[in-house]
Amino acid sequence: MQKRELGIGLIGTGFMGKAHAFAYRMALAAFPDIPTPRLVAIADVNATSAAEAAHQYGFESSSGNWRDLIANPAIDVISITTPNSFHKEMTLAALSAGKHVHCEKPLSPSLADSLEMVEAAEAKGLITQVGFNYIKNPMLKLAREMIEAGELGEITGFRGIHAEDYMHDPASPWTWRIDPKGGPGVVADLGSHIICMARYLLGGIAEINADLRTIVKQRPIAVGSSDMKPVEVDDMARMLVTFERGCAGTLEATWVNTGRKMHLAFEVTGVKGSLVFNQEHLNELHFYKAGGDPRTSGFAKIESGPVHPPYGQFCVASGHQLGFNDLKTIEMGEFLRGIALGKATGPDFREAYNIQKVVEAAVASSKTRAWERVGK
Amino acid sequence: MQKRELGIGLIGTGFMGKAHAFAYRMALAAFPDIPTPRLVAIADVNATSAAEAAHQYGFESSSGNWRDLIANPAIDVISITTPNSFHKEMTLAALSAGKHVHCEKPLSPSLADSLEMVEAAEAKGLITQVGFNYIKNPMLKLAREMIEAGELGEITGFRGIHAEDYMHDPASPWTWRIDPKGGPGVVADLGSHIICMARYLLGGIAEINADLRTIVKQRPIAVGSSDMKPVEVDDMARMLVTFERGCAGTLEATWVNTGRKMHLAFEVTGVKGSLVFNQEHLNELHFYKAGGDPRTSGFAKIESGPVHPPYGQFCVASGHQLGFNDLKTIEMGEFLRGIALGKATGPDFREAYNIQKVVEAAVASSKTRAWERVGK
Amino acid sequence: MQKRELGIGLIGTGFMGKAHAFAYRMALAAFPDIPTPRLVAIADVNATSAAEAAHQYGFESSSGNWRDLIANPAIDVISITTPNSFHKEMTLAALSAGKHVHCEKPLSPSLADSLEMVEAAEAKGLITQVGFNYIKNPMLKLAREMIEAGELGEITGFRGIHAEDYMHDPASPWTWRIDPKGGPGVVADLGSHIICMARYLLGGIAEINADLRTIVKQRPIAVGSSDMKPVEVDDMARMLVTFERGCAGTLEATWVNTGRKMHLAFEVTGVKGSLVFNQEHLNELHFYKAGGDPRTSGFAKIESGPVHPPYGQFCVASGHQLGFNDLKTIEMGEFLRGIALGKATGPDFREAYNIQKVVEAAVASSKTRAWERVGK
Amino acid sequence: MQKRELGIGLIGTGFMGKAHAFAYRMALAAFPDIPTPRLVAIADVNATSAAEAAHQYGFESSSGNWRDLIANPAIDVISITTPNSFHKEMTLAALSAGKHVHCEKPLSPSLADSLEMVEAAEAKGLITQVGFNYIKNPMLKLAREMIEAGELGEITGFRGIHAEDYMHDPASPWTWRIDPKGGPGVVADLGSHIICMARYLLGGIAEINADLRTIVKQRPIAVGSSDMKPVEVDDMARMLVTFERGCAGTLEATWVNTGRKMHLAFEVTGVKGSLVFNQEHLNELHFYKAGGDPRTSGFAKIESGPVHPPYGQFCVASGHQLGFNDLKTIEMGEFLRGIALGKATGPDFREAYNIQKVVEAAVASSKTRAWERVGK
Repeated sequence: MQKRELGIGLIGTGFMGKAHAFAYRMALAAFPDIPTPRLVAIADVNATSAAEAAHQYGFESSSGNWRDLIANPAIDVISITTPNSFHKEMTLAALSAGKHVHCEKPLSPSLADSLEMVEAAEAKGLITQVGFNYIKNPMLKLAREMIEAGELGEITGFRGIHAEDYMHDPASPWTWRIDPKGGPGVVADLGSHIICMARYLLGGIAEINADLRTIVKQRPIAVGSSDMKPVEVDDMARMLVTFERGCAGTLEATWVNTGRKMHLAFEVTGVKGSLVFNQEHLNELHFYKAGGDPRTSGFAKIESGPVHPPYGQFCVASGHQLGFNDLKTIEMGEFLRGIALGKATGPDFREAYNIQKVVEAAVASSKTRAWERVGK
Repeated sequence: MQKRELGIGLIGTGFMGKAHAFAYRMALAAFPDIPTPRLVAIADVNATSAAEAAHQYGFESSSGNWRDLIANPAIDVISITTPNSFHKEMTLAALSAGKHVHCEKPLSPSLADSLEMVEAAEAKGLITQVGFNYIKNPMLKLAREMIEAGELGEITGFRGIHAEDYMHDPASPWTWRIDPKGGPGVVADLGSHIICMARYLLGGIAEINADLRTIVKQRPIAVGSSDMKPVEVDDMARMLVTFERGCAGTLEATWVNTGRKMHLAFEVTGVKGSLVFNQEHLNELHFYKAGGDPRTSGFAKIESGPVHPPYGQFCVASGHQLGFNDLKTIEMGEFLRGIALGKATGPDFREAYNIQKVVEAAVASSKTRAWERVGK
Repeated sequence: MQKRELGIGLIGTGFMGKAHAFAYRMALAAFPDIPTPRLVAIADVNATSAAEAAHQYGFESSSGNWRDLIANPAIDVISITTPNSFHKEMTLAALSAGKHVHCEKPLSPSLADSLEMVEAAEAKGLITQVGFNYIKNPMLKLAREMIEAGELGEITGFRGIHAEDYMHDPASPWTWRIDPKGGPGVVADLGSHIICMARYLLGGIAEINADLRTIVKQRPIAVGSSDMKPVEVDDMARMLVTFERGCAGTLEATWVNTGRKMHLAFEVTGVKGSLVFNQEHLNELHFYKAGGDPRTSGFAKIESGPVHPPYGQFCVASGHQLGFNDLKTIEMGEFLRGIALGKATGPDFREAYNIQKVVEAAVASSKTRAWERVGK
Repeated sequence: MQKRELGIGLIGTGFMGKAHAFAYRMALAAFPDIPTPRLVAIADVNATSAAEAAHQYGFESSSGNWRDLIANPAIDVISITTPNSFHKEMTLAALSAGKHVHCEKPLSPSLADSLEMVEAAEAKGLITQVGFNYIKNPMLKLAREMIEAGELGEITGFRGIHAEDYMHDPASPWTWRIDPKGGPGVVADLGSHIICMARYLLGGIAEINADLRTIVKQRPIAVGSSDMKPVEVDDMARMLVTFERGCAGTLEATWVNTGRKMHLAFEVTGVKGSLVFNQEHLNELHFYKAGGDPRTSGFAKIESGPVHPPYGQFCVASGHQLGFNDLKTIEMGEFLRGIALGKATGPDFREAYNIQKVVEAAVASSKTRAWERVGK
């Protein structure tokens, strides 16, 4: 790979904006083979926030207008962490300016708009990535390798869930997060993560049968207000799925699972073995291998270490553990490497679009109360 | 309650026959308030096995003919642990003879036959029970009480699973367990347990949408044989359900879940709290209570103790733990108490029939690939 | 083995009396090869309690005078579950009458008295057993076999603990349990269990360096009383030990470990592997085997099943789980088999005496604040 | 606090050098209130390594001679991550040049040399810190706060351990890590971490009684070599301790605990509650609070979140989890804040010296086989 520098422009300074900034700051430190990310500019609708963020995260400049980043020739890469409704406009502008784009999920609230974004990127031959960071975990890479290598034998089933509780309190007010203009509810917000994980491990989902539910039917318009506004998006999504490879599974997403903070978990079963993962202990993978001495067989708790790349880029000793921001660093490292190599490592826009098609099929199925084929 | 003696007749000496024998032997020792079970006779189609079992388990007599037990006036209670296809004939004969009946699940392979058994028992006014022992766990009683008392607030969802792996090996031969004459496959065998548990905690299931799969399409007719016989029953069952109370959930049953020995588990979520249970650690219940100090809140691991009846009947100290056979003893203790009180504590034949209706609706749904209402 | 009947006489109807009764009732049902235990008589200082217990547990007769059991020629075996200070008198009487004796731990508060009991039993050639039930767990048998077979390689260390919290509340009143006439405090009461377990797995303890502490310095003489009585026995015991085989370890016992109900746990390490056990999950043993593929190595969670004798005597399916009373049944089954075979399976009186010598060395060490050799 | 910039000079580019570089890169991004760390120069005895590291980690310059950093007026802070034997010379040079110093543990192999370093720093009034990163965990801060606030009541005991297995294989060759010139073995290397943690939570250790063992008596001089060299340092350390506050405890350290990768764990018990922590799940703290409803009481699994500072500096959502490098970032953030405030947040050189005195007392005790008072 030819070493070079890539100018980074980051739009947004909130939760994910900070995560991107951390990741770009760390990417080269973890991955010496990638192009050097040069933190050129950060933008936020609030120019003061942008300036403070530039200082804090080490960007050379800041702006209250994201179009300044698009216009900046020193910037090769645009990272978009704004609310969903802005993604399309920003992305298309960045692509037009010849910039590679990282966009937080989902690409857009509308499947058609997302497809337009995909096609624009592919037409330009630019590298894209979407923020499905959880699959960047070395334990997920191990799981996928084991499945592909046949270590579980023929795959027979999958159970996946992403459950959190940040919306469980009926007193939590109505927010942009549940504005139907931003897309469906938890089936898109968290459901997309477990769909992504399922696809990453087992490939495409062919059919889906979903039941989406709104648990909290109305919410106050502000904390403590007695003015209530109806909730039109789902709080809980349950799905039966069949994979293109033939096996079946269940997927579930909920943001009202009282007590759960990060229950993103799966169990994949095969004729020769099973794997169990839970993001609550993200540095572990549990593996049962059939056919061993039954007296001493059981699920082995594999702890993440240098033998599980790219763990070793962060620490040379096993068991020291990666955190959430490290997964984001891996994500950005792979994105920048992909730009250098001219090949996305994914999930790229196309994959995000494919995930969104599953979400849309779930929404459709919940309305028709019937099995729906995914995409066309 | 008026103390008296109840003569016990047990049919069958296999896995469940032994469990019944253990339980009848222990019931009075654990529950001094119940009628004294007198172990009158045990029957098995193999008279020698019956005689050995009588000695081992302390029955006064044995027989190679189950009808001898029906005819024996010293016997008040018949326990049936034979293969499913014999349940109806034995039950109807016992009821005709005026005996209370405990029958292992399912009542029969046919819903119509099961209904006939229910109606025969109800017409006679005799006490019945069916072997859904897992809900006899003090931790399950606690869970139900907490839900009923509103400690979780309004219930918002349920996830239940019963996964084991005793059929996961494709080399495991074709057996009576997968003979379609005995009923559907795992959806009945293990699925009935998680359906029972769901009903016990949350009440009736209104609608179901199921996907049943046969994973191992054919099996050798005997260990090591190359003659294969097709498998016609399901190995994996996945279900979306809605409860009569309004909330929704998922249920899953599989006997090919490589590595899982007793993964009978649920999570029930409410607006004010959640409960998590796993039979793999049957003496624990995990409880999250919303609204506490967030700094120190988390799922509490409740360990079973005398404060959770009827644990204290077995041990006066917390944490010493009950085992599978103790659950069976509770089941039999409650059955005998129910006879004395003239009121079944359940699950009785009617409840077993209601569970079977859910199983049947799942089978139907998997065929129609549509939501099916349960029973009528 | 020649089949025959053994008449059982049980002294005491409290916590352990009940556990013995349960175990004798179940022993033959679990172990068909042993002599049939005939439940001849039960005694309690309270004759009414004894009569009720006889009915409940199925003994043929009862008495308010334990000497009636000694005098009864139909009784071959005496089980002693009374307070410690009665053990010696009862035991010597039973041995004199030619009866085999099971005595709850400790043999007696005094090492000299215990030795007298040991020697009396050995002189008579009678079979004895002492109630260290936790090592009867199939998972402990597996652990010992693995160690003996060299599956862990050379043993390098041991960490053992028995922590509960039944005395943690300073408002809990002064009781017989902390009467120094009954012996030292937790170092004997719980410490003996972890010492027993350490010896069972690794053999004799050569030297000990202990620190015993009294945490609650005085307790009310009754619940709610303001009259306080000083506490003279230890609440917490911490010990460094060296084993005769050469390796070292730590042992700890405490009954004031707030929140712990049954934390009887160990980790044994060897050059080739390690084992981790915790009675809180008594049906599991965790095994790490060195030298495997580092990518998929980790502690395997072994779940108890029929492949781990004598689990299969209780249930033919893995993962169904044994409880505390089942361990006691194994204990009694082995005791009765030992009588038939003329050979104790242990722990017998001699072993209980050896355990007590370790306790005594710990008490001595805590006073001298120096290493003490165990026994002579 | 007055905002300003601090020039950083880092010596060493190995395991800990990388961790320091990561942490300095991230410190401002996480903690906007601290002085801006300017990455001025990095040194390594291998100038090429230094140059590569400078590029990778974003330092402005590099050198093959650490004295260049001392001489550089743009550098305010020296971070030392070289082998132990170099610490003293580098530290004294840095202090003489008026630079604040972060030094990896231990300060030096010799207690006297360490004291000289402490006194040099204190005489200069410079800020120091030593790399005990594990206590920087928000869960540890929570534990300490809870203890100090009396939420556990009077503290009654402590159990601490740091067990790993990186030296468990007898075929692992002799290295600098076991060169006695570098100090004692695991009692210093890992033992210092659990001693630090114990002191952080409960304060000073007054007395110690230790048993140190060398398990692998000789090691090959290189991988695969048959030339063996004797091992003179300990592999396993077990300690009884009494704290200055009066309670007692055990501490253990081992690097031959086959299978354990990061078992740094403690349980602290109090009259009103207990806390359990294990670095294997570093984002959790388990809390048992006495006196609640016994029916629903149990250890609560607290998951790290923004309510536990400084977690929120890394992520605004609970349960996302910090990793090892984040703990190091907190460490460096606090160090730099301390420089700005003119007050070390610790552990500073004095604290590291106090920890080393405990280590020395353990070594002495193991030789005298008697209790030793710590320091004077």
